[in-house]
Amino acid sequence: MCQSVNLSQAADLLRQAQDILILTHKSPDGDTIGSGGGLLRGLLAMGKRARLLNSDEIPARLARLLPEQEDFEPRYIVAVDVADTTLLGDKLAIWGDKVDLCIDHHPSNRRYAGHLLLEADSAATCEVILELLEELAVEITPEIADCLYTGIATDTGCFRYSNTTVRTHRMAAFLMEKGCDFGRINQENFETVSRARMALEREALETLEYHFGGKCAMITITRDMLEKNGARDDDTEGLSAIPRQIEGVQVGVTMKETKERDGFKLSLRTVEPIDACAACAQVGGGGHVRAAGCKITGTAENAREKILAALSQQFPDQQQEGLWTEF
Amino acid sequence: MCQSVNLSQAADLLRQAQDILILTHKSPDGDTIGSGGGLLRGLLAMGKRARLLNSDEIPARLARLLPEQEDFEPRYIVAVDVADTTLLGDKLAIWGDKVDLCIDHHPSNRRYAGHLLLEADSAATCEVILELLEELAVEITPEIADCLYTGIATDTGCFRYSNTTVRTHRMAAFLMEKGCDFGRINQENFETVSRARMALEREALETLEYHFGGKCAMITITRDMLEKNGARDDDTEGLSAIPRQIEGVQVGVTMKETKERDGFKLSLRTVEPIDACAACAQVGGGGHVRAAGCKITGTAENAREKILAALSQQFPDQQQEGLWTEF
Repeated sequence: MCQSVNLSQAADLLRQAQDILILTHKSPDGDTIGSGGGLLRGLLAMGKRARLLNSDEIPARLARLLPEQEDFEPRYIVAVDVADTTLLGDKLAIWGDKVDLCIDHHPSNRRYAGHLLLEADSAATCEVILELLEELAVEITPEIADCLYTGIATDTGCFRYSNTTVRTHRMAAFLMEKGCDFGRINQENFETVSRARMALEREALETLEYHFGGKCAMITITRDMLEKNGARDDDTEGLSAIPRQIEGVQVGVTMKETKERDGFKLSLRTVEPIDACAACAQVGGGGHVRAAGCKITGTAENAREKILAALSQQFPDQQQEGLWTEF
Repeated sequence: MCQSVNLSQAADLLRQAQDILILTHKSPDGDTIGSGGGLLRGLLAMGKRARLLNSDEIPARLARLLPEQEDFEPRYIVAVDVADTTLLGDKLAIWGDKVDLCIDHHPSNRRYAGHLLLEADSAATCEVILELLEELAVEITPEIADCLYTGIATDTGCFRYSNTTVRTHRMAAFLMEKGCDFGRINQENFETVSRARMALEREALETLEYHFGGKCAMITITRDMLEKNGARDDDTEGLSAIPRQIEGVQVGVTMKETKERDGFKLSLRTVEPIDACAACAQVGGGGHVRAAGCKITGTAENAREKILAALSQQFPDQQQEGLWTEF
């Protein structure tokens, strides 16, 4: 039984808690580490023992936000920005049914924790943590401000996405006043790409093709491309945003070969009037109207044909006559 | 004689002015059109006649911010975000020595106007316009908010650059409260690229080369590449930011062939400790420490050799042994 709590109740729970373990989601991003790091530093400032875990390696730009940590046997478990226990990853799976308090902003939260503080209209879990730390009367140090700004900036694409609110900007202003090093954080998170990523992007752009009179743009990333360029899976992050950005494109499709090389994972990004979820649902996938995904086994040609067939119903005036590409 | 004025004095000048012509800078960007459009709408709301001019064609995403305009013989000339009369462009050059009031945020402003309202610590001229409209007691309508948000967002790279301040975020929050359509503005200005630009980027990435042990990255854009892809000069905007973004790169160099095909314009972007201005100065260019430029006549090979020679003094441990490239 998961009980919903408000800020004041969550603050009470944390005041009573001792020896707190903070769990963050696998493939760690700015919001889960920023939230966890901010809460961790706040709890330490309150004189409590606390530490943070992640199933995967934390990238340097995020790991630097965390203080040195001491080991201890945890007595209270908090998960931050973790919508479902499957997102804890292999190493933290043992804690899945032991989470006392979950703090999150995902409307899809699976309510797996004893208590849940959920603010679905927050752009980032870091926004919830900032409110919670104020409720706990924790002083916002520059280090805490760095953590919280990181999560807010990364989850909003640096204030670009439509989840950004008036409060998001006000909180950013407040965190800058509290001394966060926003210049460095922005530089590390938004203006730095690996050489492998740059090489991969170049190759991905070579596969760019247009369909339905230019209203659909598609790129393909194969395992060979990843290997040849020494790229890791997280180097492909953000590539799926590229095709949809092209002028006149209503649906951007990114096809990425699976690790097992038995097919392709497709990621669709759309603007009105195209429904990404409806198209993906036809081939066994799902998601949201503006962003959805699916997996199609077999060759790239097969995946391309299947998704174009699924999309063709939404382009009634632009019948796909075979496959034509430009470039 | 140019006289500096403060907000209150500038407001007085505008209150007394009639039939106002607003001049914006050539190659119009979000800040000059946002500033001009916001001021124009404010003056119209005050019951004055006002119109706005630009020497060049205004891109659709910015032109839509402007109201319909009536023609009249101007009696008071205001320039916004125009640091120097040369930036007025050919069509507006005739007004260069007739500007009554200049409103700007560039520290390099050449003080060509009768009165100058300069706030060099503002991230955008739109920040100054917002203060000025409040001084004039103009109500901030959603249309004015659209104008001012556009300038603030574009001049800060959507709150990413280090010119962003606490006030910048507070103003963004305020403009969102006043009804600006920030989702659409961000989409149009930050998430839309032309097909020609995408094609050009792909070709530019193919020319990517590394020097000085990976601390220098360089891309080359030729006229042939522009022509082949149907790209215009403004499609190259932002490309010069790419090489510097690569992990480990301290200086990013973008070489773009001149229209006359008689040489290359070089754009350097650096991080510490590399001084872009010092390197460019050695080949007759100039600029700032972090961003500078120069023109080198002759072939691409010649330009590459000259700029690498100029840079080599700042890479004493990484002597350039001939030219080696990777990729």
